[in-house]
Amino acid sequence: MQTISENKCHGGIQGVYSHASEVCGCNMTFGLFLPAEAADGPVPVLWYLSGLTCTHENAMTKAGAQTWAAEAGIALVFPDTSPRGNGVADDEAFDLGQGAGFYVNATRTPWAAHFRMWDYLADELPAIVTANFAIAEDRQAITGHSMGGHGALTLAMRLPGRFRSVSAFAPIAHPTASDWGRKQFTAYLGEDESLWAPHDATLLMRRLGFDGPVLIDQGSQDNFLNLLMPETLAQAIAERRQEGQFRMQKGYDHSYYFIATFMPDHIGFHAAELFR
Amino acid sequence: MQTISENKCHGGIQGVYSHASEVCGCNMTFGLFLPAEAADGPVPVLWYLSGLTCTHENAMTKAGAQTWAAEAGIALVFPDTSPRGNGVADDEAFDLGQGAGFYVNATRTPWAAHFRMWDYLADELPAIVTANFAIAEDRQAITGHSMGGHGALTLAMRLPGRFRSVSAFAPIAHPTASDWGRKQFTAYLGEDESLWAPHDATLLMRRLGFDGPVLIDQGSQDNFLNLLMPETLAQAIAERRQEGQFRMQKGYDHSYYFIATFMPDHIGFHAAELFR
Repeated sequence: MQTISENKCHGGIQGVYSHASEVCGCNMTFGLFLPAEAADGPVPVLWYLSGLTCTHENAMTKAGAQTWAAEAGIALVFPDTSPRGNGVADDEAFDLGQGAGFYVNATRTPWAAHFRMWDYLADELPAIVTANFAIAEDRQAITGHSMGGHGALTLAMRLPGRFRSVSAFAPIAHPTASDWGRKQFTAYLGEDESLWAPHDATLLMRRLGFDGPVLIDQGSQDNFLNLLMPETLAQAIAERRQEGQFRMQKGYDHSYYFIATFMPDHIGFHAAELFR
Repeated sequence: MQTISENKCHGGIQGVYSHASEVCGCNMTFGLFLPAEAADGPVPVLWYLSGLTCTHENAMTKAGAQTWAAEAGIALVFPDTSPRGNGVADDEAFDLGQGAGFYVNATRTPWAAHFRMWDYLADELPAIVTANFAIAEDRQAITGHSMGGHGALTLAMRLPGRFRSVSAFAPIAHPTASDWGRKQFTAYLGEDESLWAPHDATLLMRRLGFDGPVLIDQGSQDNFLNLLMPETLAQAIAERRQEGQFRMQKGYDHSYYFIATFMPDHIGFHAAELFR
């Protein structure tokens, strides 16, 4: 593991690190905020998964999350959204290839060689983070935005016991029925739609639910409401009697201004579980 | 004036606007955050001047200032750091020309035609902002980072009665004695150093001081300490018996992580004066 940068921030350290990823077959970069409390022993951690076109850097610099994580004494991990590099397949569209891993293990060419973001986030990166930093493995929570909200919800539901709580900002809620999903799942997983279902938050909510509280925030003026399909997830949460909240926030859009506005609520929500 | 974007943020609106600038002879862009209270009438305003290489956008997206401005009910203005465009002179160096206006009125070619950031910020942009938005002209404060800290301090001291309070993050504190200053003042103002003195915060503090409280934060691990020369300003504040605080913050560097960490203190500091 290589240290790219470390900046003191809110009494803790905002670091950026890179490492050779066996799973993705390339170097991967991630951001990690450690609060001051990490100097005295392991601290709880909140994973933040980013959306289309983002790297590890966007939320790290624009979401204001460190403010509230420092106050709560929680670490933050900001993974990248896909494998990257010259040898890694890509596409001209912003929503396929590099920057658009969709948190799945691709099985189709040209993607299968590197695009294994599910395994990267379910196994490889957690092992690296807990081995190298003062992170309490038994106190984890996860959140994300848009494509990253999709990733957070699907990882949380399919890895029971891993995360105490899950939240999402404007998640891609029903990708098997949306152009943000069908296009990518066809490319990465092939045309058999039964293989897509384990990567659809609405379908997983209906089938599995989550063993803990769920918080979803969605802006009512989001430009991408037709692609995100929040109504299907809200319905599934209610039908399942899932512990949780779905909040439609009047006037907010899909931007980091929306995320930053509700970040204190999300970190407070996770902190209540992580310090229970 | 043209609206580039408006995003709901912390209950208010983060807007970006552009306008034809008579002073700079080009189009200029600025960011403006209006808290929810602005719907009911004029609100106090805090000006934030950015550092070298920045546009109106950097602090707007990375400093976390809207969080605290919304809580306090204060507007924020994020001006650009120089004139811009194809017809505007520039230099290959990051610290001269576009992105490096240094908050002076240039008198030398090729800069004099457009680089008039002092008049832009002292006169033209305040008139535009107060004419078009619910801003209380008699409740203004100013802050900035690095080159912007230099701008904030020099504007505040040379426009007595305009600002109730002034603060700065790692300001260029003594540019007439630093390579961040001598190079630019020579280019923009010529070699007569007597014309530089009105643009040096340390010299102005010795000669004029400020009629209100001053807050300066400086990171002890800042890579640019030799260029910033904070010690000269700290000494001048103490010698003048200027109401204010100079804080050397252990371990912090020159980055936005440093700014974001102490932003709540700065906004609280200004709010105390703006709502007095």
